Amino acid sequence: MKQKGYVHVYTGNGKGKTTASIGLAIRALGAGKRVLLLQFMKSKSYSEHNILKALSANLEVETMGKPFFIAKEGSVSEEEIARYKDECVVFSPGNPPEEYKKLIADGLERAMAATSNGEYDLVILDEVICALFFELVSFDDIKGLIENKCASTEVVLTGRGAPSELIDMADLVTEMKEIKHYYTQGIQARRGIEN
Amino acid sequence: MKQKGYVHVYTGNGKGKTTASIGLAIRALGAGKRVLLLQFMKSKSYSEHNILKALSANLEVETMGKPFFIAKEGSVSEEEIARYKDECVVFSPGNPPEEYKKLIADGLERAMAATSNGEYDLVILDEVICALFFELVSFDDIKGLIENKCASTEVVLTGRGAPSELIDMADLVTEMKEIKHYYTQGIQARRGIEN
Repeated sequence: MKQKGYVHVYTGNGKGKTTASIGLAIRALGAGKRVLLLQFMKSKSYSEHNILKALSANLEVETMGKPFFIAKEGSVSEEEIARYKDECVVFSPGNPPEEYKKLIADGLERAMAATSNGEYDLVILDEVICALFFELVSFDDIKGLIENKCASTEVVLTGRGAPSELIDMADLVTEMKEIKHYYTQGIQARRGIEN
Repeated sequence: MKQKGYVHVYTGNGKGKTTASIGLAIRALGAGKRVLLLQFMKSKSYSEHNILKALSANLEVETMGKPFFIAKEGSVSEEEIARYKDECVVFSPGNPPEEYKKLIADGLERAMAATSNGEYDLVILDEVICALFFELVSFDDIKGLIENKCASTEVVLTGRGAPSELIDMADLVTEMKEIKHYYTQGIQARRGIEN
């Protein structure tokens, strides 16, 4: 009989949620497990994709969302929107474009299938908690996914702002807590370190 | 001119310190950086070694210590010591065997060289904070290492129990905080997930 798969949550405002899940993927691959990394709200331009896509036949990486930026009406200029729109979706609070909602809905559907069909030993839903926080997916969807997952599939959910109902359902929860960050020194995100 | 390298600390009692540093290594490799992962207090039996050792010519992985177990005098039987001694060093509080102290000292020497000679863009000193916590390395050694590091080399230190002096010296500090753990449900560490 296969071992039971648990539900992990990596949340909090600190660094290390996505990288910890990628490190866990590497560890699982090293033990011969089949892994799916499903990225919500990330662009394909993260440096790790260069390595991950060629790493192992046992690893699949899929990017189902796009980064986004919620702008208060009038706070972002047309020029800025034009500049960022290839990499990032800009919308006003509570009002994501239909096309973006569809991207997230497709991602959720893929996540539901991958966690329930037994095809993978480990499924990582990167930034899905962020999608939940911004009400792009509902808690009932996440609850259904956890309740219907294949018993032997390990599921990892990452993203800041995990609600207490999700923490109650998870087996293992780690809060990545920012104690100190050089962003406060005015340092920008750097290629190969932050993205 | 090369970009400035920062000092990261991943500490706390939660899961994800080592995996976050491995994920960061993958990200850095994806951006063409040269990476050294130096593991203190870990055995070679962690699953990730199977993948990491063949991953990229830009990544070197070295294991400089061994796991250990600090036992109160008389609390561990001779049979148990015999059973664990290949994988794990057993010693009484404050009294590590000379051979083990040498392993850690060699690791520190390697770390000093690798962070100061500019050969690597990213050096990860996994569990070195744990070695500090158990007084197997001194804070002055770690301080010297940070002060003498090559300006462009990014250094990551992991392990529970980071002292406030180290947090003061670091640029970025994340506490991995255990919110919930299935160990409390009596689940043992599992291959490909915990090790």
